[in-house]
Amino acid sequence: MSQLAAPNAGLNPAVKILSDGQAFVEEWLRRVLPACETPPARLHQAMHDAVFPGGRRARPLLCRLIAERYDGGDSELVGRMSAAVELVHCASLVQDDLPCFDDAEMRRGRPACHVVYGQATAILVGDALLTLAFETLSNVPSRLGTVAFRLIGLLTSATGSSNGVIGGQALELEPLPIEIGHYHRHKTAALFRAAAAGGAICCGAENDVARWARLGELIGCALQIRDDLDDVTGHQTDLGKPIGRDAALGRPNMALRGSPEEAHAMRKALLDGVRELLGPATPGSEALHLLIEEVTRPSRV
Amino acid sequence: MSQLAAPNAGLNPAVKILSDGQAFVEEWLRRVLPACETPPARLHQAMHDAVFPGGRRARPLLCRLIAERYDGGDSELVGRMSAAVELVHCASLVQDDLPCFDDAEMRRGRPACHVVYGQATAILVGDALLTLAFETLSNVPSRLGTVAFRLIGLLTSATGSSNGVIGGQALELEPLPIEIGHYHRHKTAALFRAAAAGGAICCGAENDVARWARLGELIGCALQIRDDLDDVTGHQTDLGKPIGRDAALGRPNMALRGSPEEAHAMRKALLDGVRELLGPATPGSEALHLLIEEVTRPSRV
Repeated sequence: MSQLAAPNAGLNPAVKILSDGQAFVEEWLRRVLPACETPPARLHQAMHDAVFPGGRRARPLLCRLIAERYDGGDSELVGRMSAAVELVHCASLVQDDLPCFDDAEMRRGRPACHVVYGQATAILVGDALLTLAFETLSNVPSRLGTVAFRLIGLLTSATGSSNGVIGGQALELEPLPIEIGHYHRHKTAALFRAAAAGGAICCGAENDVARWARLGELIGCALQIRDDLDDVTGHQTDLGKPIGRDAALGRPNMALRGSPEEAHAMRKALLDGVRELLGPATPGSEALHLLIEEVTRPSRV
Repeated sequence: MSQLAAPNAGLNPAVKILSDGQAFVEEWLRRVLPACETPPARLHQAMHDAVFPGGRRARPLLCRLIAERYDGGDSELVGRMSAAVELVHCASLVQDDLPCFDDAEMRRGRPACHVVYGQATAILVGDALLTLAFETLSNVPSRLGTVAFRLIGLLTSATGSSNGVIGGQALELEPLPIEIGHYHRHKTAALFRAAAAGGAICCGAENDVARWARLGELIGCALQIRDDLDDVTGHQTDLGKPIGRDAALGRPNMALRGSPEEAHAMRKALLDGVRELLGPATPGSEALHLLIEEVTRPSRV
């Protein structure tokens, strides 16, 4: 995130909150991934390369920033939940790039996992990151067991075939026409829902869980529209990945099904909903605004 | 299992225990799998076909039979743990059959998942069954939460990249020579360990967990040697899958690395260890003996 690297990051409280959050997420991802030299070393190196260097870390940052709206929650619980949602996301990216899915050779400006390590290892990387996500939540001190158990339920549902990411990916392969909002809610928004709700659950903020889940869903849908727009109107050099893939593969894309202008309008409506849910401006809500603005802004407006 | 279909199954208490266990496992698998008509219906049908009709259900039966050695444990907990280990196993089979792994077109006498549904769906079936395994354990009534949480930790470890099935599959792709016992312990025995230990944990038999885990490991290693022998000396018509794959793919195989006779001797030594751990004959230990004999006997002796 370009703002975060600015030397005056300490001057703006919202930027400082975001920057601290990003360091926190990286630290927890490093902590839960097996060391690259632990056997099977080739697989562990491939898992490492699938997670580092990351993208915007939007999902774990959302989890952390929601927790920061309260007392910050138990740091280990928030760290593990943040890492877990990012691991599920990284698993889905490795898999999306496979030849039988999007057949993408580049990811984050580098050769995709299956290009470097072969398809078999890439498939195992997906399985291993997925399993590690749940293992990460199961490896908590016993005092945190009850809440971690609930987070596992939340994350398995957000990942699974009926209501989660995997179900969303499967919709692309179904014979029936896809309702695009339904597709976005599963493939992308489900994990944002879980990340945001998880942040609140880590702080015991039970009354607010539904509100933050809704916030996560709106952000996820706006981000997916951003991705759709980028695939239609973006440039490969900005994005570090090829464009025009949705049209080539016949994938549902909001900016293709309607027009880019309609997609922009839909994104704006979602972000208005986000603003309403966020409420009055505080450094914490400002940090969330910054994150949301950053992750949902198309590369070419 | 041919004995179980015999009309006089009720006459032998050990056979009755096994037969009841098998019905119990099928019932729980049906209960936790999403209905085939639930969207995405094509994926859910493919998941169903990957689980039914099953093979010997050795892992879940082991879990159930260990629990039966005590008071049977909480039926829901044992049912969910049994189903969860079988789901992980079915996920690994779907994946093993993919073109970039073993490239097998047949499984259990029928066309493999990727042949019927394509590679992309087969990969999603693997992800979805894996996630469902952990979700199955997270969906318990709250009174069972503490034990279910522990079972999730046990199963994620038995599945994951460092000590589990995924790590075992990855060993095939590592550049270093493989120690074959290490490979068998990860690829096959880890899930048997978890199944057996899980059965004891469901019954609160803490002092016996290590013993049953060891029993599971020995059975898993013996079963893998059986598979190795079948691949070398078996017949495709008996097995419902092609033979000679390990030699063709350069996979580690105990009967190829040594001789079939050495593999038979190793299997016998493992089963002697099993017998020692099982202790004096009771209907419960007889049922375990029956299961073990059935699942570790090569198709051609």
